Amino acid sequence: MPSPVTPPRGMRDFLPADKRRRDLVLDVIRSTYRSFGFDEIETPVVEDSARLHAGLGGDNEKLAFAVMRRGIGVEDLRGAETPLDLADLGLRFDLTVPLARFYATHRAALPPVFRSIQIAPVWRAEKPQKGRYRQFVQCDIDIIGEPGAMAEIELLSATSAVLGELGLTGTSIRINDRRILLALLSHWKVPIERFDLALVIIDKLDKIGVAGVVKELSEIGVPVDGLAEQLEELAGATWESVSAPSHPEWLDAGAFADLLALRAALPEARLEFDPTLVRGMGYYTGTIFEVAHPDFGYSLGGGGRYDGMIGRFLGADVPAAGFSLGFERLVDLVELPADASGEGVVLLYDEAQDPAALVRLQHEVAATQGRVRLDRKAKNLKNQLSGLAALGYGRFAIVSRAEVSADELEFRTLA
Amino acid sequence: MPSPVTPPRGMRDFLPADKRRRDLVLDVIRSTYRSFGFDEIETPVVEDSARLHAGLGGDNEKLAFAVMRRGIGVEDLRGAETPLDLADLGLRFDLTVPLARFYATHRAALPPVFRSIQIAPVWRAEKPQKGRYRQFVQCDIDIIGEPGAMAEIELLSATSAVLGELGLTGTSIRINDRRILLALLSHWKVPIERFDLALVIIDKLDKIGVAGVVKELSEIGVPVDGLAEQLEELAGATWESVSAPSHPEWLDAGAFADLLALRAALPEARLEFDPTLVRGMGYYTGTIFEVAHPDFGYSLGGGGRYDGMIGRFLGADVPAAGFSLGFERLVDLVELPADASGEGVVLLYDEAQDPAALVRLQHEVAATQGRVRLDRKAKNLKNQLSGLAALGYGRFAIVSRAEVSADELEFRTLA
Repeated sequence: MPSPVTPPRGMRDFLPADKRRRDLVLDVIRSTYRSFGFDEIETPVVEDSARLHAGLGGDNEKLAFAVMRRGIGVEDLRGAETPLDLADLGLRFDLTVPLARFYATHRAALPPVFRSIQIAPVWRAEKPQKGRYRQFVQCDIDIIGEPGAMAEIELLSATSAVLGELGLTGTSIRINDRRILLALLSHWKVPIERFDLALVIIDKLDKIGVAGVVKELSEIGVPVDGLAEQLEELAGATWESVSAPSHPEWLDAGAFADLLALRAALPEARLEFDPTLVRGMGYYTGTIFEVAHPDFGYSLGGGGRYDGMIGRFLGADVPAAGFSLGFERLVDLVELPADASGEGVVLLYDEAQDPAALVRLQHEVAATQGRVRLDRKAKNLKNQLSGLAALGYGRFAIVSRAEVSADELEFRTLA
Repeated sequence: MPSPVTPPRGMRDFLPADKRRRDLVLDVIRSTYRSFGFDEIETPVVEDSARLHAGLGGDNEKLAFAVMRRGIGVEDLRGAETPLDLADLGLRFDLTVPLARFYATHRAALPPVFRSIQIAPVWRAEKPQKGRYRQFVQCDIDIIGEPGAMAEIELLSATSAVLGELGLTGTSIRINDRRILLALLSHWKVPIERFDLALVIIDKLDKIGVAGVVKELSEIGVPVDGLAEQLEELAGATWESVSAPSHPEWLDAGAFADLLALRAALPEARLEFDPTLVRGMGYYTGTIFEVAHPDFGYSLGGGGRYDGMIGRFLGADVPAAGFSLGFERLVDLVELPADASGEGVVLLYDEAQDPAALVRLQHEVAATQGRVRLDRKAKNLKNQLSGLAALGYGRFAIVSRAEVSADELEFRTLA
């Protein structure tokens, strides 16, 4: 029995109008990042399994689609102990692991401070549900080789500009620093091997409240004496708290200074200090940020500093920070300018036309109209015209004689 | 032992200069095809295995990378009879099989005559060698739903325009019609089940000569009496032979009429009649064409009419014709206009600068310069400047005081 004719589960086709819309939005993102001195690169969609599963991808590693080795036979099937023994490649699940691999391969050819753009699909075998796809586009910028706050400043400045160009004026950027959270965990005497778990719990503060967080922290053995008060204080911290003349000595002074430097450098980027912001990935080491939109419970993107990670394949320490926009969520929010549709004209002809004359006419009209479609006139002209309007054409003319010239055509508007 | 840090075998990374060059060439192809009324679509990079291996892809099916089913366990490994039993998806090896699947899925939402653009990567597990990659980009246009020669005329007209826009003035398009070849095979009493094999042999005419073809045809049981003379005549046929007032009755008169119609409609499209042109894929049913460049033994692209194929997943007969450009070969031949490089400026600053002032300056300068990169001044300025020139920047200025404004900057050319 043939399977139903659909795209693979959890993946999508894009018809002309959707594809056009996506490309126009991607062009804005790409050209804005370029204008800030970032350069686009591209890597293959697959990476060697050993790289993908090197522990840099957190939980996403488990969602990687595995690509089978070529030339394996039945004896390999019998001999394999796990399915991954049969795979030597995998579809990338993010753009950060490939960037680390790319940087390790090409470091010598790249500038000392490398500003990369990656705009490309990634794949995750997630349970398909509304708004979650198994192939989706990420827009990442990263600055590799800059240890100071200028990296975060450039990332935030460029990304704020992108959000502005896209007309997403309601968005703000929540910001925090992992060092503050880590200092807190040390102060609370959380054992270092429980840090990741404790961060996951603190990340739930806005969902389960202080009492819930205290309860879950106590369940993993954190001493909870006085914890509720400190959590309340943490959750209530503001830019004023950050810029207070003194902080408890156990807090990370460098983190506070960097946060204030970012805020001072970017007076127009709507930065909101959020001391409970955690971000999922384990590799963040400093500033972390997330794009928030008042109408949506989810973030539109995020990033931060991840100093230990990019150099992993090199065996070297390489400072790095990045910002990733989730394109699939962004693209639905963007209102494109009106001039993106209604472009182009249609020449409707009947059977008796001379093809040579039609081709000549198409070239002539294209010189002034940009986009010209030749279409045989259908019996049901009204249907045809509304279909052409739906395709984004603005005007049409009927080619009524064989040797008409471009300036004899009478164009009418497609409603 | 860690594997060497390289992209997967037979695949490539693109560094900024390469990526930029590729995108500029793709933009020309995309916008030219759009100007002729074609619309871009996109499908997922993988298709269900059953679709990929439905027999529409010819030999390329064997080169498909298989993507493993999720959630398989050891018992599946033991129970599988072939590796493909463990795969439910595969990376597409061309853009035609996905187009057939796309058309079957979305036919109701598409115009009666659908002109598609697909510009996207495909994957083939070929033995890597110079100029042959395992991930490469194809640029396909297809017209679905037009049974007449207007489809071929539009494909050839648009593709000639693309080649012209890319400055590939030396190229010509070789053209033939499968119906002529099939009529010959019938006339030669080749059993129908040997047609594919016989076409492969005829395709070698320019390599092994008439004697070689006769020998190989005789080896598959074709009666060779008088064959050499007919092959000589075939190989020597020209536009004059096509337009001769009469042809042997066993030749396909419709094919000749269509070829002449194409030639008449496209006087400027350097069409060369090549009666020995075969094209590899079994699915072609009418006109076939190939882009030839005098400096290269290989074609830059090709296509033709393939009426039975697009409707296969629908169980319907759908006329279709397409033209595919091999991007990897094209992109090396294109000379980009000079203004594609030397764009953008660099602001070099030293440690003491105020980040807020730098961000403000970057925005100010971007308003007139388009692309502005901030870079900390390196100790070895000469090295730094040549690196920036290599990145494509045209000019630089040194930001020597904290509160400089854009019109105080002194720009110098990067050599």
